[in-house]
Amino acid sequence: MCELMGMSANVPTDICFSFSGFLHRGGGTGPHRDGWGIAFYEEGGYREFRDPHPSVDSPIARLICDYPIKSHVVISHIRQANVGGVRLANTHPFTREMWGRPWCYAHNGQLSDWQQLPLGLYTPVGSTDSEHAFCWLMGELRRHFPSPPESPEPLWERLHALCERLRGLGVFNLLLSDGVYLYCYCSTKLAHITRRAPFGQAELSDAEMTVNFVEHTTPNDIVSVVATEPLTHNEAWQRMAPGELLVWRGGEIRARYGPKS
Amino acid sequence: MCELMGMSANVPTDICFSFSGFLHRGGGTGPHRDGWGIAFYEEGGYREFRDPHPSVDSPIARLICDYPIKSHVVISHIRQANVGGVRLANTHPFTREMWGRPWCYAHNGQLSDWQQLPLGLYTPVGSTDSEHAFCWLMGELRRHFPSPPESPEPLWERLHALCERLRGLGVFNLLLSDGVYLYCYCSTKLAHITRRAPFGQAELSDAEMTVNFVEHTTPNDIVSVVATEPLTHNEAWQRMAPGELLVWRGGEIRARYGPKS
Repeated sequence: MCELMGMSANVPTDICFSFSGFLHRGGGTGPHRDGWGIAFYEEGGYREFRDPHPSVDSPIARLICDYPIKSHVVISHIRQANVGGVRLANTHPFTREMWGRPWCYAHNGQLSDWQQLPLGLYTPVGSTDSEHAFCWLMGELRRHFPSPPESPEPLWERLHALCERLRGLGVFNLLLSDGVYLYCYCSTKLAHITRRAPFGQAELSDAEMTVNFVEHTTPNDIVSVVATEPLTHNEAWQRMAPGELLVWRGGEIRARYGPKS
Repeated sequence: MCELMGMSANVPTDICFSFSGFLHRGGGTGPHRDGWGIAFYEEGGYREFRDPHPSVDSPIARLICDYPIKSHVVISHIRQANVGGVRLANTHPFTREMWGRPWCYAHNGQLSDWQQLPLGLYTPVGSTDSEHAFCWLMGELRRHFPSPPESPEPLWERLHALCERLRGLGVFNLLLSDGVYLYCYCSTKLAHITRRAPFGQAELSDAEMTVNFVEHTTPNDIVSVVATEPLTHNEAWQRMAPGELLVWRGGEIRARYGPKS
């Protein structure tokens, strides 16, 4: 299995603290040695750093820890390969442009019968179940919404229904973003925390590192982090329920969809 | 104006030497302070590093110089903004997936009436003439070839015709790749060099650096570099003609199309 981490914030925020803990799971405290990646949205632009080598040994990962990139939305992934060899084309996150926005996707889990999911406008570059499911999902969204919908709720409902269908094929924990919203869908395991004033201290679970957020924030900042497992051990993370989709914007939950019965 | 650099090689080769000279033009020996980017194809995968800050000051650029990423095809760009503000979404290279391959594009020049170019399946994320022309070009290719053509020549001919049309709108020097072929189209300025056994020494024009390629190569290596201006001052670079398209694969020219009269 892989691990996921995401961030949604109302001000451009760097992810150095959380990423420092997260990357230790990539071959340090965790077994996820098969590559890692992180994507940042900055002022409507998008960039990602991906490496098919373990994050704990990666000079690119060290750069990300040391070089604060401030962003409203971040998606990161460390990989333990199941479907698809260890190579760059199979390294998350994956990206496709839809409606003039770069959509970014990372998946934790494993699907069966994923080859049957029919592809539309988007085609996988690598050989993973994850990227195939992403291309199917994007193709389905674009088929239903050839242009961006005027209000977002029909899109969110459609996305939730597509995620539920993928959950029917196996384990499908998802982080997805268009740069404005962060979508988190839980199939088995995802937890989140929202930090806002009054800010306190946080201690990483995976590395000896403490941060006092009050030194790095202003009173209006709202920053939420989502991860497969809580990244700190002295804060109250909330676990998501299987089948639940959360829609984040600016660090806050804007919509919540429960599992279809 | 911006500057372009590309590489095509028959063995995975790092670009550290050439990039060390090239990045000096990004605010060092050149005026191109408005961002830079570099894309690598590795084993069918693709990754890029982009930064809206000057390359000469960029910690990410220093990492690329120091961390040899071995690749068959590289495309790099340093930017002096004309159309579109200095921000990440306007930073080359641009990428779109077509036929399950990541296509990468960088442009040097400036176009007029580019807003009239009709868009198909691909939509710009940023606000540059360059990305609009890329989306138009990809949309046109995909419209003519809904699936990849069995033999590549019709695609190359169509690409050349599309480039010629863009040259009619202004200055359009292009580097484009699908990870196998490197396409170089010259509107005003592009030069190239092919290095093969017996390898010699090369001295950068923009920085004090010399490399003895014989220490870094095997006798069968063929490595070609393309750039807006020659990067070394002791080798015989060949300049391309306006309207010329070169198709590279494995460091060698596989096809050449001259200007339409």
